Amino acid sequence: MAERAADFTLDEIVSRLGGELIGDGGLRISQVATLENAGPAEITFLANPKYRKQLKTSRAGAVVLSPADARDCPLTCIVSDNPYAYFARVAQLLNPPSRSPSGIHLSAIVDSSVDPDVCIGAGSHVGKDVRIGKGSVLGTGCILGDGVTLGVQARLHGNVTIYPGCVIGARVIIHAGAVIGADGFGFARETDGGWTKVPQIGRVIIGDDVEIGANTTIDRGALDDTVVENGVKLDNQIQIGHNVHIGADTAMAGCVGVAGSARIGRRCTVGGGAIILGHLTVADDVNISAATLVTKSIGQPGTYTGAMPFEAHRDWLKNTARMRHLDEMADQLRTLETRLAELEKKS
Amino acid sequence: MAERAADFTLDEIVSRLGGELIGDGGLRISQVATLENAGPAEITFLANPKYRKQLKTSRAGAVVLSPADARDCPLTCIVSDNPYAYFARVAQLLNPPSRSPSGIHLSAIVDSSVDPDVCIGAGSHVGKDVRIGKGSVLGTGCILGDGVTLGVQARLHGNVTIYPGCVIGARVIIHAGAVIGADGFGFARETDGGWTKVPQIGRVIIGDDVEIGANTTIDRGALDDTVVENGVKLDNQIQIGHNVHIGADTAMAGCVGVAGSARIGRRCTVGGGAIILGHLTVADDVNISAATLVTKSIGQPGTYTGAMPFEAHRDWLKNTARMRHLDEMADQLRTLETRLAELEKKS
Amino acid sequence: MAERAADFTLDEIVSRLGGELIGDGGLRISQVATLENAGPAEITFLANPKYRKQLKTSRAGAVVLSPADARDCPLTCIVSDNPYAYFARVAQLLNPPSRSPSGIHLSAIVDSSVDPDVCIGAGSHVGKDVRIGKGSVLGTGCILGDGVTLGVQARLHGNVTIYPGCVIGARVIIHAGAVIGADGFGFARETDGGWTKVPQIGRVIIGDDVEIGANTTIDRGALDDTVVENGVKLDNQIQIGHNVHIGADTAMAGCVGVAGSARIGRRCTVGGGAIILGHLTVADDVNISAATLVTKSIGQPGTYTGAMPFEAHRDWLKNTARMRHLDEMADQLRTLETRLAELEKKS
Repeated sequence: MAERAADFTLDEIVSRLGGELIGDGGLRISQVATLENAGPAEITFLANPKYRKQLKTSRAGAVVLSPADARDCPLTCIVSDNPYAYFARVAQLLNPPSRSPSGIHLSAIVDSSVDPDVCIGAGSHVGKDVRIGKGSVLGTGCILGDGVTLGVQARLHGNVTIYPGCVIGARVIIHAGAVIGADGFGFARETDGGWTKVPQIGRVIIGDDVEIGANTTIDRGALDDTVVENGVKLDNQIQIGHNVHIGADTAMAGCVGVAGSARIGRRCTVGGGAIILGHLTVADDVNISAATLVTKSIGQPGTYTGAMPFEAHRDWLKNTARMRHLDEMADQLRTLETRLAELEKKS
Repeated sequence: MAERAADFTLDEIVSRLGGELIGDGGLRISQVATLENAGPAEITFLANPKYRKQLKTSRAGAVVLSPADARDCPLTCIVSDNPYAYFARVAQLLNPPSRSPSGIHLSAIVDSSVDPDVCIGAGSHVGKDVRIGKGSVLGTGCILGDGVTLGVQARLHGNVTIYPGCVIGARVIIHAGAVIGADGFGFARETDGGWTKVPQIGRVIIGDDVEIGANTTIDRGALDDTVVENGVKLDNQIQIGHNVHIGADTAMAGCVGVAGSARIGRRCTVGGGAIILGHLTVADDVNISAATLVTKSIGQPGTYTGAMPFEAHRDWLKNTARMRHLDEMADQLRTLETRLAELEKKS
Repeated sequence: MAERAADFTLDEIVSRLGGELIGDGGLRISQVATLENAGPAEITFLANPKYRKQLKTSRAGAVVLSPADARDCPLTCIVSDNPYAYFARVAQLLNPPSRSPSGIHLSAIVDSSVDPDVCIGAGSHVGKDVRIGKGSVLGTGCILGDGVTLGVQARLHGNVTIYPGCVIGARVIIHAGAVIGADGFGFARETDGGWTKVPQIGRVIIGDDVEIGANTTIDRGALDDTVVENGVKLDNQIQIGHNVHIGADTAMAGCVGVAGSARIGRRCTVGGGAIILGHLTVADDVNISAATLVTKSIGQPGTYTGAMPFEAHRDWLKNTARMRHLDEMADQLRTLETRLAELEKKS
């Protein structure tokens, strides 16, 4: 979500962002687009060699690409070692965050003193002893419980709920419907099978430059805090349990669940729908594939997978029927082996 | 959720909805109910032959059923080739959507001009340049960002958030807590492992007669739009990534996740908890089973499954221990085969 | 989420909660903490023998533990047969729920008459014919549809939506963003592949002492009601379909999905990310492991599992390639068996 700003010449872009320009630096660029759809006032990128042949037919004004791809590029181009990251920066330049009017909306309820530079949207509710950093923007219907701290230039979209006492860093983006700091799932089992609630007295501590997707939930700690380090990116509908610790720059795709007290390393990636059980440790630089269930600690970097391959339903029926007898099959195999060895001795 | 209207005679029902009536057309029907619980002023249905014997004991005033089941039905009945669809229409007739008072609630903040026939609930916030079709109803606490377009007779329940610029069709129903148009999960990786946000400048375009479940999220496109065609039905807690395209009349059950740029065909069904990876294509008329991970394109109609069968934990432990050695087992099998062939030659 | 109250001496704690005290009963305790981090004014617990050696180094003022562990405990201790449940009660004593100011916030819209002892937060909307039990607290931005009944001492956190007609028991806790009573996913398929909505006229009935996590959704029944019995605990982001029945004291971890008309027994536990299909029955005292897909009824208590084990991606590639040929492998095994038996007869 962004608002279009003024356009820039390619010379202006390169002078701000670096990179080597090949072609007409006076060309004005007003927007980013795909290689397929870009027009003459738009800039695109090529990161995947698979699409290289599209360079010939693209109508783009300019393209960001790698030194290797630049060699026989028919278009005006900006050369960068990391074309997609460069393109991201151009896209940010052309699409700055929408500017919200500063100040507190008449319908907002604010029980703390707030910097005049802060924007608080319609119907939002800011509790007591809340600190909000300069330049931060709360959308409509946000709730900041008592004692919440929010860093500078943070952006909360609509209907975000932050429970009391949580600490959110600078430049954090939180999308609509996200809930930060609800009680962790902590209950002691009584002998009759009933459950006694364990009060959740920890907080959620979120670092700088974190982005949190729509309807994602991050529970407060039971006794100590739940911690999300700087630069972590969480997609929509993710559930983070109490006392989880997520290392810096780790990224998780939608629908991931992380159970209580799991400790995830830095720069990890977690694919959509993966479930990470509690009280385990995942090392730095681990990639978990989509829909994988992580049941024990992972000590070494690398890619780990546990999803079942899909197939036509009738094949699946036949194969999974065997799966329930895999242990017997292994036994049969061993028996055959013994019997065969016996025969071989004789022959 | 519905409000009960006046009742109808069976003759009135048949004259509005068609079907062949066998029995007393003057009987007044006030509500729908299950075959098991229906009373004399209620109408029920029989679609699954498994429940045919319940016809004998049912106290229902009338029953909707197929020509085959009508033959020896002891109850007053309406005969239809598609009894469940007919029953759905009777249920709609008897339970019209609850009528909301037209007009804008005093506590709503509306920054666009709105037709007098539109209802905007308490505390809702409608941004600038928003267009809302006649007869549409926004519940309490809804947020429509600047430039949103909403078709006629749409129904948004409480706390729905629609980000700026999204386009929603006619007669769309969106349940509480759904978020339409939050940023897609788009980040470029820097060489140090950090992430640079790629602004998400596409929109979400939703067709007519779509229903979207509670707390479901549909992300806006990165460069182009995310598209949900007419008649699509999405259950609760579904996550649709940026630039996904969902064909008309496709239905998805709860907790499904669809990753970015996946293209799903028409009239597909997707079972609960399934995950569909990004940048792939699913043909029309494909059925994905519950909890299945779709990792590559599906070109042919049919049913596809990938879930692991469940079993008693101790059996599972034994079988899955073997699963990690399946490749070795296959090798052993081949070795045995060779050795056996050798012996057979000798004998 | 809780607020700290005054502290208690160990004598006061034991006189309220029972248990046997060994050590100085005059010691004042102000908070609970982990065995590792507790200080001299804090009480901790030992439930898992694995951590017994930490007793020697802990700085805790007191510890709750079992008779066996109490024998050579160097710290002041309270002895209990269920140390964790005892600890939970101490934690509740020291951290009573935060007291909200009674009364209706000026910005709330309340269309029913409400007991003066009830607290209704900013911007909340209470419909007509709503009954709210004494001592209940609604947070900011909550929506109670017409005809909702809420028991005594219930606690709704921010942005909770309850659709019309639902019945919620006493002392229920509902976390932010939860949606109770949205329409179930009910559509009749027409012959052209389109869907006709079946109005959902049942309600959601929730018993006493239930806790419902953030962004969890529980759908109203299609014809009859959806029922959640007393003492059920649901974590965040759970989806409960229409007409599901959940027995007393069952607990479900985050991201679980239960499809329509499933009937779950009492005292069950369901691990995170599990999916339970519809129209099936699960007996009392069944434990479903995380990420398990339950495809048929379970008649006996016990633990059931269906998740795929994860492994290094390259091993997974090899093993799952075989999985698609498991049926052939079983056939090959049988063929080998026959050929071997033939040879054995000859030799």
